[in-house]
Amino acid sequence: MSTEIEETVKRLTSFKGVKGLFVINQDGIPIRYTFEPELVTHYAALVHQLVNQTRAIVRELDSTDDLVTLRVRSKNHELIIAPEKEYCMCVVHIPDVTHD
Amino acid sequence: MSTEIEETVKRLTSFKGVKGLFVINQDGIPIRYTFEPELVTHYAALVHQLVNQTRAIVRELDSTDDLVTLRVRSKNHELIIAPEKEYCMCVVHIPDVTHD
Repeated sequence: MSTEIEETVKRLTSFKGVKGLFVINQDGIPIRYTFEPELVTHYAALVHQLVNQTRAIVRELDSTDDLVTLRVRSKNHELIIAPEKEYCMCVVHIPDVTHD
Repeated sequence: MSTEIEETVKRLTSFKGVKGLFVINQDGIPIRYTFEPELVTHYAALVHQLVNQTRAIVRELDSTDDLVTLRVRSKNHELIIAPEKEYCMCVVHIPDVTHD
């Protein structure tokens, strides 16, 4: 895994409130993650599905458009999802934890 | 439509970069909107579908949780979606237009 991704992972997980993050490949397979494998597999499958559904909707609204980021804020969590061509990174954040 | 919603619609559409907004009911029917009906019907159906899919995913990850807001940022637009119990408001925003 490139040092650039490792540095990004380290920087992001150092933020207060970040429960963990994972990187999935084009098939939704987790290739880098900071929390338990069983939990990640579950998150990865659902996030992969959501990214594909959202990307299809974005393109249906405007065929020249493409998904850049997706933020899912729920009562207990926030998922910040950044889909790129080959990878997709998802940060799982606990919203009410204040930043330094 | 209650004055509170009207005031919210007015305030939100006054922001620079806001292309329009719409409010849909639990069935995804647009009940208040600020842009052309044909466009809104298309947006409403897709946003309704996305909210339901995202809500199901949030609950599958944590059954005690619930969706609060959803932000879909694409190259050309940003959809800011606020699903409540009976209504769901979606603001369609052009991201690169700077605010005053």
